[in-house]
Amino acid sequence: MRDVAIIGIGMMKWGELWEKSLRDLCVEASLNCLKDAGTDRVDSIAIGSMTSGLFNGQEHLASMVPDYLGRNNIPAIRVESACASGGLAVKTAFMEIASGISDYVLAIGVEKMSDVGGGDATYALATAADQEYEGFHGITFPGLYAMMAATHMERYGTTREQLAEVAVKNHKNGSKNPFAQFPFIVTNEQVQSSVTIADPLTLLDCSPITDGAAALLLAPADEAKKINKHPLIVISGIGHATDTIALSQRKDILKLDAVKMACQGALKMAGKTINDIDFAEVHDCFTIAEIMIMEEMGLVGRGEGGKAVLDGYTSLEGKFPVNPSGGLKSKGHPVGATGVAQIYEIVDQLRGNAGERQIKNARIGLAQNMGGSGGSSITHIMEIK
Amino acid sequence: MRDVAIIGIGMMKWGELWEKSLRDLCVEASLNCLKDAGTDRVDSIAIGSMTSGLFNGQEHLASMVPDYLGRNNIPAIRVESACASGGLAVKTAFMEIASGISDYVLAIGVEKMSDVGGGDATYALATAADQEYEGFHGITFPGLYAMMAATHMERYGTTREQLAEVAVKNHKNGSKNPFAQFPFIVTNEQVQSSVTIADPLTLLDCSPITDGAAALLLAPADEAKKINKHPLIVISGIGHATDTIALSQRKDILKLDAVKMACQGALKMAGKTINDIDFAEVHDCFTIAEIMIMEEMGLVGRGEGGKAVLDGYTSLEGKFPVNPSGGLKSKGHPVGATGVAQIYEIVDQLRGNAGERQIKNARIGLAQNMGGSGGSSITHIMEIK
Repeated sequence: MRDVAIIGIGMMKWGELWEKSLRDLCVEASLNCLKDAGTDRVDSIAIGSMTSGLFNGQEHLASMVPDYLGRNNIPAIRVESACASGGLAVKTAFMEIASGISDYVLAIGVEKMSDVGGGDATYALATAADQEYEGFHGITFPGLYAMMAATHMERYGTTREQLAEVAVKNHKNGSKNPFAQFPFIVTNEQVQSSVTIADPLTLLDCSPITDGAAALLLAPADEAKKINKHPLIVISGIGHATDTIALSQRKDILKLDAVKMACQGALKMAGKTINDIDFAEVHDCFTIAEIMIMEEMGLVGRGEGGKAVLDGYTSLEGKFPVNPSGGLKSKGHPVGATGVAQIYEIVDQLRGNAGERQIKNARIGLAQNMGGSGGSSITHIMEIK
Repeated sequence: MRDVAIIGIGMMKWGELWEKSLRDLCVEASLNCLKDAGTDRVDSIAIGSMTSGLFNGQEHLASMVPDYLGRNNIPAIRVESACASGGLAVKTAFMEIASGISDYVLAIGVEKMSDVGGGDATYALATAADQEYEGFHGITFPGLYAMMAATHMERYGTTREQLAEVAVKNHKNGSKNPFAQFPFIVTNEQVQSSVTIADPLTLLDCSPITDGAAALLLAPADEAKKINKHPLIVISGIGHATDTIALSQRKDILKLDAVKMACQGALKMAGKTINDIDFAEVHDCFTIAEIMIMEEMGLVGRGEGGKAVLDGYTSLEGKFPVNPSGGLKSKGHPVGATGVAQIYEIVDQLRGNAGERQIKNARIGLAQNMGGSGGSSITHIMEIK
């Protein structure tokens, strides 16, 4: 298996991008990525999108994206695992290179969510849940995560203030990210007093509806050393796991087994423990998710996530910074793009280019991407070689 | 890169399967496949589905399928490239094994199309075309292929009788396939006189709306030799290419560049020419498609496909049998399942288990899968080692 490096990264400012279409977003992120890489060689493309069919009436991105990138005829694939689609695009690109099938593979994540009316966006997102046993009965994702939050508060004494502090931290980080959809700071009180979406979660506990894309160019590490101007950054570990699609089927709704196994798998492949990792981007689709993920990753003990956030453990200056980019919460969450953008941030940090939000001595970073209510998860570990 | 073998195959009778859900289809095909393989080891799953979001309100099959297969926690991915989704699932499984990431990978193709009303199925399928430049203006796939057929007739003198003979041949083959949705024979006159869908194409020129799934178990060839009771069948070549998503963007609407390049790519990887291949399953979504694909593959000269079919060149007893399974036309076309089922047929033939439709001395077979109006294509070559 060949070593695989990330030699280019591309994004744009995320938000409600009414003047940019689905294809515009893919092309813009890709061109920014190729410019950053300093090469325009692309042998193959892997695109992560959760549901461009429901959002935009457009499947077959595997044909549309190379076409509009001016790369007719190269192979392309679209991959999906709900909100973990972006992470899977990176894994697919990795496999294509590691297996020797292609050399330069572009991994793109995209979602264009604004064009759909409010009710339909909620329906489109709910297709990541079990349609027959959850969706059919009217459950939504805020509802599923609210059940986890309420149970966490009940069992471990997690407080409303602790949950809100995840949003406070991530908006503070996001205020330093020029690409963030909501780059403003919020106070703990503002989070708690914003409108309730699904008790105990308020509006500011929830990640937003976002249009956006992100792209990475992957290549064999040997090639990267020769042609790339950036420090050599390799993907040293990938872990990928699944769980029951329906939350109700789990033995314990506070356990995210897929997150735990994906994290352990990535660490094992990289030959590392969680203590070797300097910082992480994690899937904070809701504030409670970040807390539960910290616990599954072994950053803190079970039930201790809320307190750790309030203590500043995961702040930009803390012992283990989490979501320096602002996370899904502040940067935005175009679902299929998120997994790719998490790795964009890791690379930006490892290169030392993260400006005001730069983490000191960042050498090894981890990106944790999750689908649905934890039905799937993928983790990548990136390091400077 | 490790050699990859196909050690198990599974399907079921296709049709309007009102009593089977999307998940039932995935599970049934998979269990049949594991029974055939004689092992229940599955390390990872790749699922091809074009648009379960639009057909069934269910994305995140990458979580649902391992869950309902009783394999919680193993990694899974859903891949899509319109009607070539199934072929891409097999390529993805191949890459996962070739790269050394996993050993036993299940490739599943599925589509559950009947549950959606007629108008919506046409909309769902049209999302494989360019939504903004084709779908928005009301184009459908029968309309796109009708333009190709009319142009082929005009330029090369292809006749209505020649087109119809593709359906005659494929229904004749399908009548010998216990899994076929429409296992009846049709006469050339019946095809020509069936109701017009998009002139010059009639109902019997078009593949049907189908519910169905198919599954293959792939493993490293070294492992297969040890544990598998079947003859060793390897995937020796894979080719994958794309073209403009919109038919109107092509220089010549009678050229399917993606088909040509994917075929050439697979032959090159396998170290073969088209003359080394014994038979093929090809993507006859419409009768004209089979004729154009034969021409792109170099089986016959350009414009000579129609005559060759009428001359019996591609019949079961002909020089180069095409679609011994009955093809999409008679076997059915659950879009995401088709690419996997094509390879099911190749393996069944190579094993000598195809019963009444067995091709004599079948040693090397080719499966050609296509997305949209030729916006993507993937070709696999399988051979007995």
